[in-house]
Amino acid sequence: MKIILDVDPGIDDAMAIALAHKWPGVELLGITTVGGNLPLEKTTDNGGKILKLLGANCKVYPGMAEPLFRELHTAENIHGPTGLGYAQLPDGKEYIADKHGVDFIIEQVNKYPKEITLIGVGPLTNIAMAIKKDPSLAEKVREICVMGGAVFTQGNVTPAAEFNIYVDPESAEIVFNCGAEVILVGLDVTLKVLLTKEHLEVIREKGGVLGDSIAKMTDFYLQRYVDGNKLPGCALHDPLAVAVALDKSLVKMERMYVGVETKGELTRGATVGDKLSRFNKKANVSLCTEVDSERFLKTFLDIILDTAN
Amino acid sequence: MKIILDVDPGIDDAMAIALAHKWPGVELLGITTVGGNLPLEKTTDNGGKILKLLGANCKVYPGMAEPLFRELHTAENIHGPTGLGYAQLPDGKEYIADKHGVDFIIEQVNKYPKEITLIGVGPLTNIAMAIKKDPSLAEKVREICVMGGAVFTQGNVTPAAEFNIYVDPESAEIVFNCGAEVILVGLDVTLKVLLTKEHLEVIREKGGVLGDSIAKMTDFYLQRYVDGNKLPGCALHDPLAVAVALDKSLVKMERMYVGVETKGELTRGATVGDKLSRFNKKANVSLCTEVDSERFLKTFLDIILDTAN
Repeated sequence: MKIILDVDPGIDDAMAIALAHKWPGVELLGITTVGGNLPLEKTTDNGGKILKLLGANCKVYPGMAEPLFRELHTAENIHGPTGLGYAQLPDGKEYIADKHGVDFIIEQVNKYPKEITLIGVGPLTNIAMAIKKDPSLAEKVREICVMGGAVFTQGNVTPAAEFNIYVDPESAEIVFNCGAEVILVGLDVTLKVLLTKEHLEVIREKGGVLGDSIAKMTDFYLQRYVDGNKLPGCALHDPLAVAVALDKSLVKMERMYVGVETKGELTRGATVGDKLSRFNKKANVSLCTEVDSERFLKTFLDIILDTAN
Repeated sequence: MKIILDVDPGIDDAMAIALAHKWPGVELLGITTVGGNLPLEKTTDNGGKILKLLGANCKVYPGMAEPLFRELHTAENIHGPTGLGYAQLPDGKEYIADKHGVDFIIEQVNKYPKEITLIGVGPLTNIAMAIKKDPSLAEKVREICVMGGAVFTQGNVTPAAEFNIYVDPESAEIVFNCGAEVILVGLDVTLKVLLTKEHLEVIREKGGVLGDSIAKMTDFYLQRYVDGNKLPGCALHDPLAVAVALDKSLVKMERMYVGVETKGELTRGATVGDKLSRFNKKANVSLCTEVDSERFLKTFLDIILDTAN
């Protein structure tokens, strides 16, 4: 299956790229970067570094630096000043392509109509821009799988909103309502897939160079979850979105209308799930409401450690 | 204890008035009415009818017909065209006072400083207006106990908002932030106190004239919950707020900042509870997060049926 991964690495983004790259039978056409967890320049540099670490045969396509109508809000507090925690990776500038991320998405989806799954795990600015620039895109993409939102649970930037949607709510609204098949992988499920310190030690010991780098990044990220959120592990938000795109049997989904609050003050970027059809609007997304955490974690570790059968 | 009950009867309002009137040791100084479940004229007429049915020695003070900045949104679908389901009560016009509800609240709180608990179980227009008209009120009231909001749960008008706060979010924002001790009894707890068909049959059989009238009202209300919400009973929203005002041991409360979304489109009237202090604002309410449903229901039935020890 052909995928394009739209990212803002970011530590869990780095793990998501590794998972997509190593997932059997998946053709990662390229990664596009967006301003999100860090400014675009850093997310792009980090993208190059990770593809180099993986020895990937695709490139990084830098996309939008800023949300459509908002100032960029970043998350160095979670990912560290470089965006990759304590890991120090060799420069991967040769992996950075000379084509805009938005144009790469449009080019590839037109080249392979109905074949490509777009996986967006950062603010949705690139995907929204691609949809606006080429209105035929929504019909031509196979599926758009989004890490974002907190529909029936609390947000992580504010009580009402999850980071990716908070940062660029207008782009999220465009993507949710574009008419494509949209899968929403939000905090409702991603906060249920926690990587613990014990998992991380296994990755460090058995994962070779990749495992060692992931462990060094994630030492930082994990600490933020344990200290800041009092959780027993760190959420694998972005890897879960990759896994859901590739294996729907990991989750239970419900079709419903999910709107994005773009006008609210306290509720900027809230994802309002209309389970009881109070708004009388057509369902626009398939919302993940449950996840088989154990099987996802096993899949994640098996693929990262090359221990899958 | 002295209380004023601000209501928009409404079927659960009627039960709340009965509970307040019959609660041992409580002095119900009066009820004030507001446009809410029905237009003011009807909520006021219904208030008079209920006080007459109870043989109360206080009056109904008609207050605000419309929310501060919004058009009135009513709920005849839940309470029936008269607001009292299938009950047909004798006219109680002699119970309707010739004083505005807002002025009655101001007068009484000034007469009995630090003694009165205001219990608001409709849109908060009257209480907000009283606070604005007499800025000393917030300091002089003993406590304001509000039935409203859906903080860590879904709303009942929209996915984001509970009816009373949805109808007049600006008044709710004024009341929550007035500086008085505010107790919030929202759907987080009121959807856990369900009156079943079996309870209702006991009230009909053993409750005399009052019980018969409550049963006739509630036949209608209960059906809306069973059919519309697929719940095993109807929520005693307003009676629970009365009970919490009079017996705090029925609930677990958490102090936190709860803001009201007044600018949102999809989230109008959302009550955003900032448990993790993301907004860095001072706690303004005591939010009920858990309720001893069984003991509340027993208390409610014992008082309504005069079977308390």
